Amino acid sequence: MSFLPTFPDVEAAHEIIKKYVHRTPVLTSSSINRIVGSELFFKCENFQKVGAFKFRGACNAVFSMTEDDAQKGVATHSSGNHGAALALAARMRGIAAHIVMPENSPEIKKKAVAGYGAQITFCEPNLQARESTLAKVVSETGATEIHPYNNFHVIAGQGTAAKELIEDAGSFDFIIAPVGGGGLLGGTALSTKYLTPSCQVIGAEPAGADDAFRSFQKKEWVPSVNPKTIADGLLTSLGERNFAIISDKVDEIVTVSEENIIAAMRMIWERMKIIIEPSSAVPLAAILEGKINVQNKKTGIILSGGNLDLGQLPF
Amino acid sequence: MSFLPTFPDVEAAHEIIKKYVHRTPVLTSSSINRIVGSELFFKCENFQKVGAFKFRGACNAVFSMTEDDAQKGVATHSSGNHGAALALAARMRGIAAHIVMPENSPEIKKKAVAGYGAQITFCEPNLQARESTLAKVVSETGATEIHPYNNFHVIAGQGTAAKELIEDAGSFDFIIAPVGGGGLLGGTALSTKYLTPSCQVIGAEPAGADDAFRSFQKKEWVPSVNPKTIADGLLTSLGERNFAIISDKVDEIVTVSEENIIAAMRMIWERMKIIIEPSSAVPLAAILEGKINVQNKKTGIILSGGNLDLGQLPF
Repeated sequence: MSFLPTFPDVEAAHEIIKKYVHRTPVLTSSSINRIVGSELFFKCENFQKVGAFKFRGACNAVFSMTEDDAQKGVATHSSGNHGAALALAARMRGIAAHIVMPENSPEIKKKAVAGYGAQITFCEPNLQARESTLAKVVSETGATEIHPYNNFHVIAGQGTAAKELIEDAGSFDFIIAPVGGGGLLGGTALSTKYLTPSCQVIGAEPAGADDAFRSFQKKEWVPSVNPKTIADGLLTSLGERNFAIISDKVDEIVTVSEENIIAAMRMIWERMKIIIEPSSAVPLAAILEGKINVQNKKTGIILSGGNLDLGQLPF
Repeated sequence: MSFLPTFPDVEAAHEIIKKYVHRTPVLTSSSINRIVGSELFFKCENFQKVGAFKFRGACNAVFSMTEDDAQKGVATHSSGNHGAALALAARMRGIAAHIVMPENSPEIKKKAVAGYGAQITFCEPNLQARESTLAKVVSETGATEIHPYNNFHVIAGQGTAAKELIEDAGSFDFIIAPVGGGGLLGGTALSTKYLTPSCQVIGAEPAGADDAFRSFQKKEWVPSVNPKTIADGLLTSLGERNFAIISDKVDEIVTVSEENIIAAMRMIWERMKIIIEPSSAVPLAAILEGKINVQNKKTGIILSGGNLDLGQLPF
């Protein structure tokens, strides 16, 4: 297996995960189209299992393992959607999932992960504790670590969302995905540049967590330091594999304000009557902020997920 | 034209409105099915134009008018979805819509109705002022009054939602709709009892606005007096035509607590990632409250709409 996946790996992933994932719908909104003067197509991964695209990558990772490895289970550290996604994928294969979670994770996330039957190990809420606790779990169990984004099979799995979008709605002028660790954006670029090479692939990132933007500009990996954004799925630094793919295949990374993330999120809730998490709103925010000129163009947007605390809305 | 529509009138309505309305999706949720021990199918009128089933009836009323009548326009009083629905249907036919609105209507509703190009006349916020202002508008313009529910064509139009649900998902053991004025429940009963006579049709109503429940029990029309519920689409009394159809064709009306309406609404938001207004949650609330025994049965639910103020959520 090479270091970086390519489109045939996305195709292989799709064959593997097809029977486990939802083929999520592609929705349009005539009123949002009127507002932005463009034709937008939203790939609704908020309707994916566990409520996020993360299930695609986790599923591909789990079902790509050899039987011997699989029997020892999988492990990761996660306070978010990847933990739940890995837990569900493991349960579907009938193997153990060991999830290291910071002890201050929201109750709702702890419940979700536990509800999928995972073994949870709590740790101090810092990266060092997460990594050392995970190392201990892995050494004790022999489980395979599945990184949330810097993982060959995870990236290939995430690429299936854009593949389905293009299969269902045809070619595009632009496809925009949010960027955090770069699993979704990397996978999106693999599918898009293979299937419709003339389509521009754009990453949208909160200005308050702009490590991908700076890495892309500088052509050199820059870490995410003290990121601050409501888009809590996008706080993390780019992975090494993700940065390599993004540098090669993505056309542009743009940043957006918190204000526009909230405005875009509200617009999608109000006009489309669907629930998305703040991270999902970042691509539309980039359009509202004028960072991407989509006038009279056909644009695809990946709505990454729909998990958030309804008691803590920004409006 | 007879006083009460029958199923052939629903079929005729469907032919007329087909090209104007969305054929809304029917969604399922495996996690809600697990919770209630039943197979539920949700007909998503929250995705209908203007965000509610009301557009079906308004559209049928507007496009059923003779050319001569149509040229004089349509009129109604409404503080809610019917005004917006009638305004949009009239704009689609290229005729005037005169909407009488209480001056204290929410800004968002005023904007929606104005945005569809209607002529708005404001009045004092009470029924007498609404009716007298509407009478004045009608006498001045010659417009045809389109009542929000006690109207032959409106009821026939609302029946198309259940017709589509049955066409798309097959026959059911139960179909449940919320009941306010009775346009949706009446139309639902017409379609269901014709297409699948053995299916039970059930109306779900907030206990705090239980005039339909009391009318149904007493077999005599009882008005809605000082109703109080978060389900603001269901405050009104049953219409005369609606009560006649419901008495004849509905199997049962059940009432539910405010607490369960909110719990059901939150469950649909969280599990299905779609936005529904409180009125839409009343049928699932009836199941959660144990008022309808759907165990191992196939149940259809009409989600009536998705319009609400995101700044005023009950959770």
